[in-house]
Formats: sequence, structure tokens, C-alpha cells
Amino acid sequence: MSKRKPLRIGMIGYGFMGRAHSNAYNRVNNFFDLEYEPVLQAVCARDEAKAKAFADTWGYASVETDWRKLIERKDIDAVDICVPNNLHHDMAIAAAKAGKMILCEKPLSMNTAEGQEMVDAVEKAGVRNTVWYNYRRVPAVSLAKQLIDEGRLGRIFHYRANFLQDWTISADLPQGGAGLWRIDAKAAGSGVTGDLLAHCIDTALWLNGPIKTVTAMTETFIKERKHTESGKVEPVGIDDACAFLCRFANGSLAIFESTRYARGHKALYTFEINGADASIAWDLHDLHRLSYFDHRDDSIVRGWRSVHVTDGDMPYMDRWWVPGLQIGYEHSFVHQVADFLDGLGKNKPTSPTFREALETQKVCDAVLASAKSGRWVDVG
Amino acid sequence: MSKRKPLRIGMIGYGFMGRAHSNAYNRVNNFFDLEYEPVLQAVCARDEAKAKAFADTWGYASVETDWRKLIERKDIDAVDICVPNNLHHDMAIAAAKAGKMILCEKPLSMNTAEGQEMVDAVEKAGVRNTVWYNYRRVPAVSLAKQLIDEGRLGRIFHYRANFLQDWTISADLPQGGAGLWRIDAKAAGSGVTGDLLAHCIDTALWLNGPIKTVTAMTETFIKERKHTESGKVEPVGIDDACAFLCRFANGSLAIFESTRYARGHKALYTFEINGADASIAWDLHDLHRLSYFDHRDDSIVRGWRSVHVTDGDMPYMDRWWVPGLQIGYEHSFVHQVADFLDGLGKNKPTSPTFREALETQKVCDAVLASAKSGRWVDVG
Amino acid sequence: MSKRKPLRIGMIGYGFMGRAHSNAYNRVNNFFDLEYEPVLQAVCARDEAKAKAFADTWGYASVETDWRKLIERKDIDAVDICVPNNLHHDMAIAAAKAGKMILCEKPLSMNTAEGQEMVDAVEKAGVRNTVWYNYRRVPAVSLAKQLIDEGRLGRIFHYRANFLQDWTISADLPQGGAGLWRIDAKAAGSGVTGDLLAHCIDTALWLNGPIKTVTAMTETFIKERKHTESGKVEPVGIDDACAFLCRFANGSLAIFESTRYARGHKALYTFEINGADASIAWDLHDLHRLSYFDHRDDSIVRGWRSVHVTDGDMPYMDRWWVPGLQIGYEHSFVHQVADFLDGLGKNKPTSPTFREALETQKVCDAVLASAKSGRWVDVG
Amino acid sequence: MSKRKPLRIGMIGYGFMGRAHSNAYNRVNNFFDLEYEPVLQAVCARDEAKAKAFADTWGYASVETDWRKLIERKDIDAVDICVPNNLHHDMAIAAAKAGKMILCEKPLSMNTAEGQEMVDAVEKAGVRNTVWYNYRRVPAVSLAKQLIDEGRLGRIFHYRANFLQDWTISADLPQGGAGLWRIDAKAAGSGVTGDLLAHCIDTALWLNGPIKTVTAMTETFIKERKHTESGKVEPVGIDDACAFLCRFANGSLAIFESTRYARGHKALYTFEINGADASIAWDLHDLHRLSYFDHRDDSIVRGWRSVHVTDGDMPYMDRWWVPGLQIGYEHSFVHQVADFLDGLGKNKPTSPTFREALETQKVCDAVLASAKSGRWVDVG
Repeated sequence: MSKRKPLRIGMIGYGFMGRAHSNAYNRVNNFFDLEYEPVLQAVCARDEAKAKAFADTWGYASVETDWRKLIERKDIDAVDICVPNNLHHDMAIAAAKAGKMILCEKPLSMNTAEGQEMVDAVEKAGVRNTVWYNYRRVPAVSLAKQLIDEGRLGRIFHYRANFLQDWTISADLPQGGAGLWRIDAKAAGSGVTGDLLAHCIDTALWLNGPIKTVTAMTETFIKERKHTESGKVEPVGIDDACAFLCRFANGSLAIFESTRYARGHKALYTFEINGADASIAWDLHDLHRLSYFDHRDDSIVRGWRSVHVTDGDMPYMDRWWVPGLQIGYEHSFVHQVADFLDGLGKNKPTSPTFREALETQKVCDAVLASAKSGRWVDVG
Repeated sequence: MSKRKPLRIGMIGYGFMGRAHSNAYNRVNNFFDLEYEPVLQAVCARDEAKAKAFADTWGYASVETDWRKLIERKDIDAVDICVPNNLHHDMAIAAAKAGKMILCEKPLSMNTAEGQEMVDAVEKAGVRNTVWYNYRRVPAVSLAKQLIDEGRLGRIFHYRANFLQDWTISADLPQGGAGLWRIDAKAAGSGVTGDLLAHCIDTALWLNGPIKTVTAMTETFIKERKHTESGKVEPVGIDDACAFLCRFANGSLAIFESTRYARGHKALYTFEINGADASIAWDLHDLHRLSYFDHRDDSIVRGWRSVHVTDGDMPYMDRWWVPGLQIGYEHSFVHQVADFLDGLGKNKPTSPTFREALETQKVCDAVLASAKSGRWVDVG
Repeated sequence: MSKRKPLRIGMIGYGFMGRAHSNAYNRVNNFFDLEYEPVLQAVCARDEAKAKAFADTWGYASVETDWRKLIERKDIDAVDICVPNNLHHDMAIAAAKAGKMILCEKPLSMNTAEGQEMVDAVEKAGVRNTVWYNYRRVPAVSLAKQLIDEGRLGRIFHYRANFLQDWTISADLPQGGAGLWRIDAKAAGSGVTGDLLAHCIDTALWLNGPIKTVTAMTETFIKERKHTESGKVEPVGIDDACAFLCRFANGSLAIFESTRYARGHKALYTFEINGADASIAWDLHDLHRLSYFDHRDDSIVRGWRSVHVTDGDMPYMDRWWVPGLQIGYEHSFVHQVADFLDGLGKNKPTSPTFREALETQKVCDAVLASAKSGRWVDVG
Repeated sequence: MSKRKPLRIGMIGYGFMGRAHSNAYNRVNNFFDLEYEPVLQAVCARDEAKAKAFADTWGYASVETDWRKLIERKDIDAVDICVPNNLHHDMAIAAAKAGKMILCEKPLSMNTAEGQEMVDAVEKAGVRNTVWYNYRRVPAVSLAKQLIDEGRLGRIFHYRANFLQDWTISADLPQGGAGLWRIDAKAAGSGVTGDLLAHCIDTALWLNGPIKTVTAMTETFIKERKHTESGKVEPVGIDDACAFLCRFANGSLAIFESTRYARGHKALYTFEINGADASIAWDLHDLHRLSYFDHRDDSIVRGWRSVHVTDGDMPYMDRWWVPGLQIGYEHSFVHQVADFLDGLGKNKPTSPTFREALETQKVCDAVLASAKSGRWVDVG
């Protein structure tokens, strides 16, 4: 029988992210040696049948249909918020008031104002909090961070990141409803900016420091779509595509782009960083590889190295299989849970906290404001 | 509470493969909708402390230190054999006699003679059986099978496969012991032939039909290594490298090569098949991709396609995430368990059975015989 | 003895581009069946010894040290301007007045105003003219144009292009002088904008139509460098890096970036175009390949195709070797000469003419103006 | 006027290789600073009209229709043999007797016996001689040689090479005639063995030393084809595919394969060498790149490097363009001419000489003998 301490999870939501998080809770102790162990105490969904089915599949001990009740339950230590963006704010503040730890899906909030209130709430309540910017914990991305922290790149000149998808090109796709709330501005707040660029920005702030100023453009290619709730054709309020230029505090220049209209790319998050001494590049479609170029190599054998990030001396990889055997997307969530549990034992915050995630929100807000005004907008 | 029927597993072994299988048992019902559910009933290891630690990590309900006892237990439905090759034969025959289902690690046996007795035993006992040639169930490999079965490739001219590693190049590496029994001929039977080429051959027989005749060469680059058991330097009995040419029954030609001395390759299993109309290629270092070339494409846009095997209409992928988000090595085991449980409900064998895996053994034996004799050897 | 008609070339300049053009003149009739044949009549350089050495290497029949004399020579049909950007304007106008055909290196001019005068001069004089935007005639790029013209991509949503180099990162590199005039604003006009982005813009206008409006940023990372002429440290006047967002007249969005500070990239010109039905991508480091994705492919075998542009049915490739055998950078110049000679025989202009190249100049000017003002600037 | 000494070339043949060589002669002095300069004195073909057309295109001063006359001409210094394999022997021996230098297309001869007579003839006559195994002089391949000679790879364990094509899959393709003599055993001697594997073997002997012993298989997939000369369907005498295993004198193992039935590969010559410390790989479809893996790199950033072989410190590349701008297939011939002319000035042989190329012939003969006998055959 396990001697690990339980961390009793209350999950709100049961969609794609609900599955990814539940899987991470279930698996983490098989691979990481930790003081704590997640216990799947309850899942909450408005539709009881769906909540029960989800509970059965994933092993949640009970279900709730009212998220406020779940938050109030004494037998819940941590609340996991896995619902559309427009619900994060109220749930997080309520959970903070109830003294629960919070693991909140990204983006933190609909906007900076909401996010600030959420930060204030968790800090006032003194509850542990983190936001699921999971890509930080893809081993190749963590390795990029390590290489930068070791100073291997030298002075940074350039950062560029894309997040390209192609799943909304059809005009027949409706907005709203399961899986499609991301196209509904009321639920999502923004389009690719909050959904996809937020990931790019979170990683960039982590790897390259603060962004000072931005200029952006957005576009909505398909102006009207049937809404699944009203059944009527309604204007589309989200940005289908967004690109921006920016300057980082460290003097480097950057370009960011995201779209759901890049035919041929399913979920191609890419970034590249160019330093005076070395460069690194990564993409999500082959997430187990890191590209690395080191100018200090002998010139006749100098070239981009394709590093297969599967060896035991690479971040997180001593927990998995053997060199050459790759892990996948879902493992980034396992790593975040592992770090959260580890931080719990050591009383250390688990990055990104709400406060850190608020910085991403500020950049998103500046980007959207710039796209509207056509001017450079300072972040902050 | 789950209404799924239990399949009570007794696991023998606790190494790398013990982890991979246990993980698969734990995860399968979170992702696949099945009538049956594995229950981790007992794990067996000679060292009780290690067995208990493994049981604690993975959730096995009990431990055994004598495999014969585990096999005799009434509360075990299926025995999973995850130990060095020299133990497969006796365990499998005992398990068959005890009426247990058997999931046996590959290769099936030390040689064809042993394997034939194992086949006879399971068939006489009428127990369900399968061998963990897991790469068949990497979605990209399953997709290759589907494309071939659909006739897309046309007449097959060529098959080529490699399994390249580089982990035994150091002469300081001992033979024998945990993780290193693969270098010990007494435990492993052969070197790369049974360890790595067996995978290549299993896939090839599945995709391209029977092999008729082979000519082979083997080499042991490092002739002596310290043995961890005796503490003495002893001759190395395994093949460090093996390559063979062969002819398939369908008239195609093939080359196979495996080594643990290919610097730069960690676990690079690759295969390529050339047909009159189309070709396919795959490798384990980017296992989520399939390369496909179709000669029927318009000539000016004809080229190798890199298919990112992550969409819901690709084998097994409707169970996982969304397009663009890759799975990894371990999922092949989950798929094999899912198919085993599915076959159990439907009373269908789960490929490869012992009988099917025996064919791989026969090719391995022919390869080793040819390497010794310097002659072409017919498989059979 | 050849029956081809001579086209007597007077070359001004003897640097990198002088070599590339001379090579093209020498080779074109070995591979293309044309009515005309270039004759290397004279090369002009201020330094007579260098002019003679160049003439000897390339086979020019005579030398000049005063470009005005070269232009006035009766035995010259066409003037090739291969000198720093600040000299294009005067030479081109003089050549037009002398009734010579003109082949001018890119960019056309220091700015739009100069360029407009050059266009007016050649059009008033009625002389044939072209600008060496050679990348249009890399076969893979020409193939991209063909695919777009055939309508294979459908509605265009996105265009992105980069031109990344890393050769000026060292602060020890001086400005001015042979090979280094590109760092000297007096000779070059701008930095990467006119040198590298001009290529990207030319291709983009050709493939995707007019650009309407831009917002840009530029940076000079190293503010002072020794000038080779004065021998003193002087301010650097060029842009080391430039990025811009823009909107095309066809409604598509684009990002462009160029820098000489992207460690690891020597001359990496890349572009990608995303249409509703298909996408294409290309890069200069593997210029003989075109990447193509067609959404109409069967979904289970859909992926980016790597098209090796070496077959006889691909643009220009019936003139070279056999499928699989690649050509290189220099061939783009041969193709431009071939098209120029072909146009001469058929009395058709050879794209890009000065007038077409002026459009690129207008975009460059808008980009630099936007970088200065921080506002969106319409191209005009 | 050039002060270079003339080397008067007499070319026999006007096909694909005639073009490649003529191009090399025409270009070499534009890029290499040499004491000698090829002069295209005469081209010989049985069909006078074709000879004249070729002479006009390439600038040969005269034509011959009888190769014996060409060889006897006093104004010819060197004979270039660019005709089907069955004619090499007689021409080379006649040229040697006439005291001409000889540049002979590969393979040297139809078999070892013929080749030995050719070696004896040139050595007796004391005439300079070389065989056009051009791939040695692709800069990436020359760089591989340099890295090996510097000892960077350490002890060599493995060599593998493929030459894959797909142009003879159609059964409608006839044998014999222009471009198709390679399918006609009377003209070609063998199929892929002499045509394609000869290249692989030449490179391998150069990079990895002598081959001791081989075992091979061959296949003719299409047994009968119409012959263009007889107009009748005749048995096909060549090998469509050939694969062999071998052992090098240095103790390394190798596999070689060639075919014209590998759908999707136009001219994919690949090789890879694995040493204890480093590995290298190359392929002809991206001939300007060399893959290099160095185990001595820091483990967390260790990976295959893709070296873009275009910098001035790489073999031959100081003569061409600038870093990042690739050369192509044809440049390998220019390099061979440059080395031949350089050797002429310095009185050094130009590798591979007839004697060196004979070693390749011996391996080919052993391969074909093994394919027939089914036994290992020693080279020799």
C-alpha cells in the first residue's frame, strides 16, 4: 500500500483537456518518485450523464453538476479548471476563496483585468496555483531553457514563433458547442491569440524575458458562421489569424504568427532563437527533437544538429524509456503534475503561476489593442 | 463502478519491459472502450524487495518470488512473461499447462526447437497467446499494413530494414546482469539477431509475407567482456552485428541489417518497401510519421509525402488526442493490450500468436545458420 | 561555325555578381537552343589590372576603365550593371540614352524616386531591360508559379518569407570596400531590406500579387564599424535586420523577415504560401526541392510532399541532366539569360522589367518609412 | 589572351556523359587557376550529322566519324571515352598505343580481364589516365574523405551504400539504343552492378580501403524486352537489382544494394559510415549536404549535424559562390578536370587511375560470380 500523501483533485470539465489532465494524474506516480499522489475525487459537469461516463472512464470517485458545490467540498484539495475561457475567472476566484489549490487551463483569463483579479485572489488566499502552459515541459523545450540558462547562445538577436493550424478553413464549420467553443468569441474571448499565440508567448517570456512593445494585425477570414446554440448564422467575433512584431527587453527582435488557415499544418507550433554563438529551434510536430546550431564547432563540420531528446540526461527523460524511444504530447502534462506535486512537497511555486501567466495575458491584450489601433502598443 | 470484466494479470519480471507492459495495462481502459479490464493481480521476481517496490509503483496487488507459484495461482487469468529469453520456454509451457493465457515478450524463444514446443503447448492447452512484437501497433506501421492490404503498392520489388544502435561500443561495458543480459549469450541466445532483427523480421513477415531463403554474416566486434556474475573476463558469445540478404515468397528481394555499433543511432529501426506503384518508409526515431510515395500522383508534384499519423481516421488514433499531437513508443503496447482484450471479448486470436512468432524464429535460425556456414539457407 | 546572332555584352563590375552573370552568358548556348548568343565584348572596372584579370578569366575581348566609355561603344548591344546600388541610376539612364539594352543587378535603385527615373528612361528610349531577380528562375520557384497559375492552391490566406544570414555578427567586420559595400549605407542605400528582402518581395509580388500596406521594424545591432575607405570607426547606416507585416491585395496576410544575425543560416531564403486547397514551401538551402501539400489527397496518405525538381517536365529541367541530378544556384542566372535571349528573338519583355522591379522598390520604401514612423504605410 | 597551355581534347561519344564532360572542359578555367586549358579539338560519332550538331553546341573545332582516326590525329593530346562499356577496351588500348592521355567513362571495362589489359596498356605506354568516377569530387564526398583521413571517425565498424532508381519499372521500355544501351547486356556488360554499384564501390574503396570477400544476389524482374535494334522481344541479360554483403580489410562489415525498381528514388546514391567516434552519411539527392555525428559532443546537444557544404574552407568550394549557395551534379566533373589539369602541371596521377578503377572491377566481378554461385567469393 502506498505511503504517498493524497492530493484530492476536483476536476471541472470533461473535454479534451479534462482527458489530458486526468491521464497525467493517473500516470504520474508510475514514473516519478514523489511524496504526493493525486486522487481523482470528483469531476463536475452540468450534464450528469456525461460526468458519470467521464468518471467511469478515468476513475473519478464521484460527480458533481454544480461547480460551486465541487469547490465547496471539504474532501477536495485542488481544483482543476478545464472549461472555456469565459468561466476561468469566477471559478478561480471562488476556489481561491474556498482555500483550494488551483490548476487552471490556459489562457489564464479573457483579458488582463480579469487575470489581475485572479492573481489577487490566489495571492490573497495564499493558495498554490499554476496554469497549464504545458509546452514548457516538453523535454526538448525544457532543454532549450537549460541551454539558454547555461549561456550557450550568447547575446540573443532574434526570436520567431508560429502556431499554425488548418482546421477551420471550411465555411461549413459552426461556432459554439463541444470542441467548437474556440470559434465563439463569447466563450473564447479571442481566437488564435488566446488559444495559440498564448502558448508561443508563454514560452517566449520564459526563454527570452519580457516583451516591451508590439505591433499586430488580425484577420477573420470567414465573417459569419452558424452558431450551434442559436442555430442561426451569426458574425464571427474571433481572430482567425494574428501576426505581430515585437521587441524584447533584452534587445532582440521577434515575429509571431498564428492562424487556423495554414493548410498542411495541424498543430505546428515552432520557435527559433538566434544568439551570437548558437541557435535553437523546435517544433511540435516532432516534439521529441531539438535543433541546435553551435557556431563554435569546427567550421568544416558545423551544421544544425538534430538532437533526439530521449536520453536519460535530458530533462525528465530519466523517468521514461531508453534512448531512441520517444514520448509524446501527453507527457508534458505528466511533467507539469510531477512538478506541481514536487513543489507541493517542497513548498515551492510551480511555474507558470497565475502571476507569471498574467504576463502572457498582458502581451495578448497589447497585441489585440495594436491590431485594432494600427499602432505600436507597449506591454503592461 | 466499472462494469468491465476483469482480466487478472500475473507479471513475471520487473525490468524495462515489465514497466512498458504494466503501463499499458493501467492505461488501456482510459482510452479504449472494451469489455475487459486488466487487473494487476501479482508480480513475480526472485528478489522480494524489488518485486514489492515494483508492485507499489505500478499497483500490483501482491508479489511472488517463485514463478511456478505465480503460474499456479487460481486468481491469475493471464501470465505475462517479461524475463530474459532463456526462461521463456519453461514458463510458457508451465503456464499453458496451468491453463493460463500467455503474453510473452519477444523473441518467442532461444531457437525454433524451443519455440515449436511452446506453440504445441499453447495449442494443446487451447490457451490464448500472443507475443509482444509491439512495433506492429505503432499507428504508422499499422497504416503501412493497411495501405499494402488495399493494394496501393502494386507488385513488391524490394524490402529493406535496419535496426541500428550504438550502446555497446565501449569495451568497458560488462555482460550479464540487469539490463545487460542482452550481451550474455546464455541469457539472450543470440545478440542483435534475436533482440533487434527479430522485430524487423516480424514486421516484414506481416507486411510482405514469408521469407524463403537467406544468406547472412555476423560479427562480434568485442570478443571478451567482463561477466557481471563471474566477475571474470569471458568470451562474448553474441553477435554484435548481423546482416542478411533474402528472397521473399512474393519474389521481392530484401536486405536486413542490425548492429549495436552504428554510432549516432540509438534505436533506429527503419523499413522501406518499394512497389511498382508506390513505396512506403518508416523509422522508429520519428515513429509518428509514415513516408509515402505514390507514382500515380501528377508528375510535377510527385514526391515523398511525410504523413503525420495523428488524425482520427488513422489506425488507433481516434482514441488519443487531436491531429498534430503525437503519441510515443509506449502506446504500441497499449494498442496490443487493447487488441488482446478486444480479441478476448470476440474470441479472436491476437496477432502475432506463438505460431506466428515461430515463423520469425525460423528466419532467425536460418540467418544464424547461414552466418556460420557461409551458404544460402532455406527458411523452414 | 555558329549561326546564332550575337548579343554583344558590356559588363560593368567584376565582383560576385559579375562572375555569376559572365558564367551565365558563357553557358547558356550549351544548354538552350536559341537564336541569339551572348558575346563577351568588354568588361569595365576602374582598376585596369583587375579588369584585365577578369577579362582573361571569363573571356571578355576588351576592357574599359570608364563606364561612360563602355556605354558609348558602338560594338556593345547590352550593358550589364553589376556594381553597388548607388551607381545603378546614372549608369542605367546613360545606357538608355545610348540606346543600349540593360540588364541591371537588383535592387533596381536606391529608392523609388531613382527607380522611377530609370523606368522612364528605358521606356522613353524603348530599350529592352530586365533586373536580375534571379530566384524567380530557380526551377522549384518557377514550378511554384506554375502551380499557383493553375489554380491548385485555391484562395490564398497566408504568405511568409524569410531571408536569414549570419555573416555580419562579428563587430570586427568593417564596412565598405570589396564585398563589404553591402554594409555601407552610402553604397547600398539600405541593409537587408534592399539586399535580401528585395528578393523576397520580388518573388512575392510575382507569386501573390500586389502588397497594399505594411508595418515594419528595423534594427542595427552593431552601431559603429570601421570604414575601409576612411580607416575610421563610423556609424553604421544600414538596417541589420528588418521584419514587416503586410496585407496583399488578394486579402492574404503576410510576414517577412530578414537579418544578417541569424546564427546558423548562411543564405536561407524561404517562403511558404497557404491556400485553401494546397500549400507550397521552398528554401534556398535546398533549392532543388519544392514542398507541396495537397488537401485533396486521400486523408490517410496526406502529407507534405518533397518534390525533387529535376525531371524533364519541370521548368527549365529538360535542358539539364537526368531526374535526380540537381542543379545549383548559378543556373538561375543561366535561365534568366536564356529567357532574355528568347525574348529578344520574339520581341517579348523579360520579366522582371524595370517597371516590374520598381514595384519591389515601392514596397521597400514603404517598409523603411514604416520602420521610421511606427505606422502602417500604404505601398504607393 | 590566355597564357595557359592547351590540352587538346578528342571526345568519343556525344550522349549524356559527352555533355557532362564537355561542360566541364568549357567551365574549368573560369573557376580554377590552372596552368593548362582544355581545347575542344574534335568530337567523334558514327553519325556525322549528330557529331556536327554536338560540335556546334559545345564548340568542338572539328568532327570525326571513325574513332580510330580521331585517336591517330596529331593535334589531339587526350582522348575522352564516352561510349558504351563494350567499346572502352579497344579504344583505350588504341589510344594508349597512340600515346594519348585517356579520360575514360566508368566502369573501366566489361570485366576484370579486359580492365587488366587496359591497365597494362596505359602503364606500358606511360600515358596519363583517369576514370570518371565523378562522385569522389562532390565536395561533400571529398569532405567525408578528409574527415576520415583526419581520423575523426575512429575504428570503422560499418559501411552501407545504396544506389536506387526507378526508371525501368515499365515493361514497355525497350532495351538497346540511345540512352537505353544500359539495359542491353551486350553493350553494358551488366546492369546495376556495373552502372550504379560501381560508383558505390569506387567511393567505398577510396573511403574505407579494400574489400576482401562478398556474397551477393541479383535479380532480373522483367525477363524479356523488345530490342531496339532487332525490333524483337529478346531476353534481358542484365541484372535489374543487385545486393551484396561484404567484409573490408579493416574489419568493417558492409551492405550494398542497387536497383532500378525502387519506386520514388530517381538517382538516390547514399552511403553511411559508422566509426567508434563519429559517423558520416551522404546522399546524391541533396549532394550539397553531409550528415555528421560526433559522439564527443556534449551529450545533451549531440545529434546528427546537417552540414551545408558551401563554405570556402570546404573542398573545392573556394572556387564557387558564397556560403549557402549550392552547386550541383555537374560540378563534380569540373572538379575532376581541374584535378586532371593540375596533375598534368605537377606530373601527378589523377585518381582514380585505370589501376585504381580496376579494383572496382574486381569487386564487381566477385559480386556477379557470387550471385551466380550462391557462395562467398574473395575479391581478387
